[in-house]
Amino acid sequence: MSIDKETVTVPRGFLFSTVEAAIKKPGRKDLAMIYSEHESVMAGMFTTNSVKAAPVRLDMKLIGKGTGRAVIVNSGNANACTGAQGMKDAVEMGKLAAKVKGIKADEVYVCSTGVIGTPLPMGRIRPQIDVLVDGLGNATMDDVAAAIMTTDTFPKIVAKRKKIGNKMITITGICKGAGMIQPNMATMLSFIVTDAVIDKPALDAALRQAVGRSFNRITIDGDMSTNDTVLIMANGAAGNETIKMKSKGYEIFEGALTELAYELSELIVRDGEGATKLVEVEVKNAKSERDAEKGAFAIANSLLVKTAIYGNDANWGRLMAALGYSGIALKEEKTDIYLNGLQVARNGITTGVDKEANGRLKDKRIKIVADLHLGKGNAKVLTCDLTEGYVKINAEYRT
Amino acid sequence: MSIDKETVTVPRGFLFSTVEAAIKKPGRKDLAMIYSEHESVMAGMFTTNSVKAAPVRLDMKLIGKGTGRAVIVNSGNANACTGAQGMKDAVEMGKLAAKVKGIKADEVYVCSTGVIGTPLPMGRIRPQIDVLVDGLGNATMDDVAAAIMTTDTFPKIVAKRKKIGNKMITITGICKGAGMIQPNMATMLSFIVTDAVIDKPALDAALRQAVGRSFNRITIDGDMSTNDTVLIMANGAAGNETIKMKSKGYEIFEGALTELAYELSELIVRDGEGATKLVEVEVKNAKSERDAEKGAFAIANSLLVKTAIYGNDANWGRLMAALGYSGIALKEEKTDIYLNGLQVARNGITTGVDKEANGRLKDKRIKIVADLHLGKGNAKVLTCDLTEGYVKINAEYRT
Repeated sequence: MSIDKETVTVPRGFLFSTVEAAIKKPGRKDLAMIYSEHESVMAGMFTTNSVKAAPVRLDMKLIGKGTGRAVIVNSGNANACTGAQGMKDAVEMGKLAAKVKGIKADEVYVCSTGVIGTPLPMGRIRPQIDVLVDGLGNATMDDVAAAIMTTDTFPKIVAKRKKIGNKMITITGICKGAGMIQPNMATMLSFIVTDAVIDKPALDAALRQAVGRSFNRITIDGDMSTNDTVLIMANGAAGNETIKMKSKGYEIFEGALTELAYELSELIVRDGEGATKLVEVEVKNAKSERDAEKGAFAIANSLLVKTAIYGNDANWGRLMAALGYSGIALKEEKTDIYLNGLQVARNGITTGVDKEANGRLKDKRIKIVADLHLGKGNAKVLTCDLTEGYVKINAEYRT
Repeated sequence: MSIDKETVTVPRGFLFSTVEAAIKKPGRKDLAMIYSEHESVMAGMFTTNSVKAAPVRLDMKLIGKGTGRAVIVNSGNANACTGAQGMKDAVEMGKLAAKVKGIKADEVYVCSTGVIGTPLPMGRIRPQIDVLVDGLGNATMDDVAAAIMTTDTFPKIVAKRKKIGNKMITITGICKGAGMIQPNMATMLSFIVTDAVIDKPALDAALRQAVGRSFNRITIDGDMSTNDTVLIMANGAAGNETIKMKSKGYEIFEGALTELAYELSELIVRDGEGATKLVEVEVKNAKSERDAEKGAFAIANSLLVKTAIYGNDANWGRLMAALGYSGIALKEEKTDIYLNGLQVARNGITTGVDKEANGRLKDKRIKIVADLHLGKGNAKVLTCDLTEGYVKINAEYRT
């Protein structure tokens, strides 16, 4: 899959740089920097895993201020489960990156992704940070998207342009994902930059909204990582009237950010480790939205469902079983199930079209709908199929 | 793997029969019966999935009486998600089996396992039940163990003999498992027969105890089935003094039954779909036993952990991440992790022996210990690795 580079616009006032520090192995760019020429308003969301990587703990402190100038990020090593040394290394990465044009260390956010439990090879990283800083402006945001990849097979970048008053604003986001994508984000890093003028409460609210409807509703394997981070930087270069919670522009901004985050999260699922199919699971008319979400995640995380989809097997009984153990309100005899528009179960029993449904599962995009007929709760979750490829990638990840 | 048939003793007073009804496809025995010559005291435990197969709902009603004479069971079709017709078919199976020697329909328990959502082929089953009943005594308990297999690769049977007073009692159990094994049992059927004289409260209590420490602490893929059933029949042929809750014999009986159930559940995990390794996960010194169990299940169900074990990769960071998202009390800086006796993490950071640990993971039996140093809660969970074989089996299950 390739992303059409020409469609991606990047907001004014941001510079990018990438270098090779041979963190896991040589031969690829694995250290990157995003730099804003002006002080930016910043918001962030982080993993809820109680085991948090050192850079995550560092950024969670920094984000309190609500402003920043730069992000430095490496792939190949997550700097997680690395104890006191890990925090020392994260702080040092930020300090070294802060050499650029007089910004301060507490204006630099640090992110890492990759193997857990191995100390960062600072001997190789340290000298490359100078090169990274000197090179600002030599790379594109696409290059950064490529540098943060781990098991991803393609870089992920999405841009949105909207008019706020008479000013055009641009929001551009990149992310990396692949495995470990479960509610509350994933081994997911996402960096979003915008030239919009927006205050901190509005930026916080818009990010929470967008992530709740996108990154938090995708799942690859049910695992949740120690490093998940979404950061957004708004440098104000567009010169629009300041977006605040109650201003007209807020809805436009939040809408665009949610769309962007949804499209990024769809790219993550499409690139799920070993995935051959994108699967949207919708649970409709559950007793509550919470029930709908729980039911949809139970289906989306069921290995039996995911392998059946991979095998073009309309084994809808496995969906029913997953709904049954999800713990939500359910009446088997009221439940309807549809696979790519074809009703395979009515009132909890077969409609006799499994063979035709098997054929429909050959599509690369699968839509599962379970209509519970119990209330008004709806939720959609994105996932992918489970293949031999997933096993292979994750069995050999460190070799 | 083969079970040494000579070691398996079967208690007096039970007869067995198996026939081929070509339920899923021809070429194998797929319908079996266990018959007790005397009225038996019975106890049962059933899936907690809210979607329950028709025979499960039928047996849950029958078990209230606490007695019975026979079990009829088919593989190849789970008779789940089959609506009113499903219940009619289950009841008919019981009625037809009750033709034998004047027993009543409500003394026959009915079980099914296999594909969900397809009505039973009663046209093929009906005539074979007569053959089944006529053939009682022509098959062994091993044959029944083979007839109930679905994706299992070997029949599972375990026997225990103990002295109660001056009488020898025998307990023999069979089971089928393979995929979908998660807490609260699985697509698991287990039938246990004993000639012990035991009253209903003691039999209930011993079964609950045994299942809680065995079948409910194993997991293959985190899915939970619609058909899980454990039934025990005690026909009293041993003539021992009646075992009651407070009698001396109770502890002996409960101990033997727990051992038997643990060995059966170990056989299930050993035969996990596509599994190449048996993995015991122990969480020690958690804040509570509940925390220990939750943490152990989080590790045991993590696809990233299971694929790493398959790939001989001592990626203990994935264990830490799983403990972190399990929601239990955890101090990263206090946590020690051991893989097959080798300490790979001390106080949450690497001990630098990952390479040696990779070598130890080549064993076929893997022992993971996470010592949380927070309290006195301990729990062990059994699981297996996740392989391309699992995906292949479950992608092609119905084809």
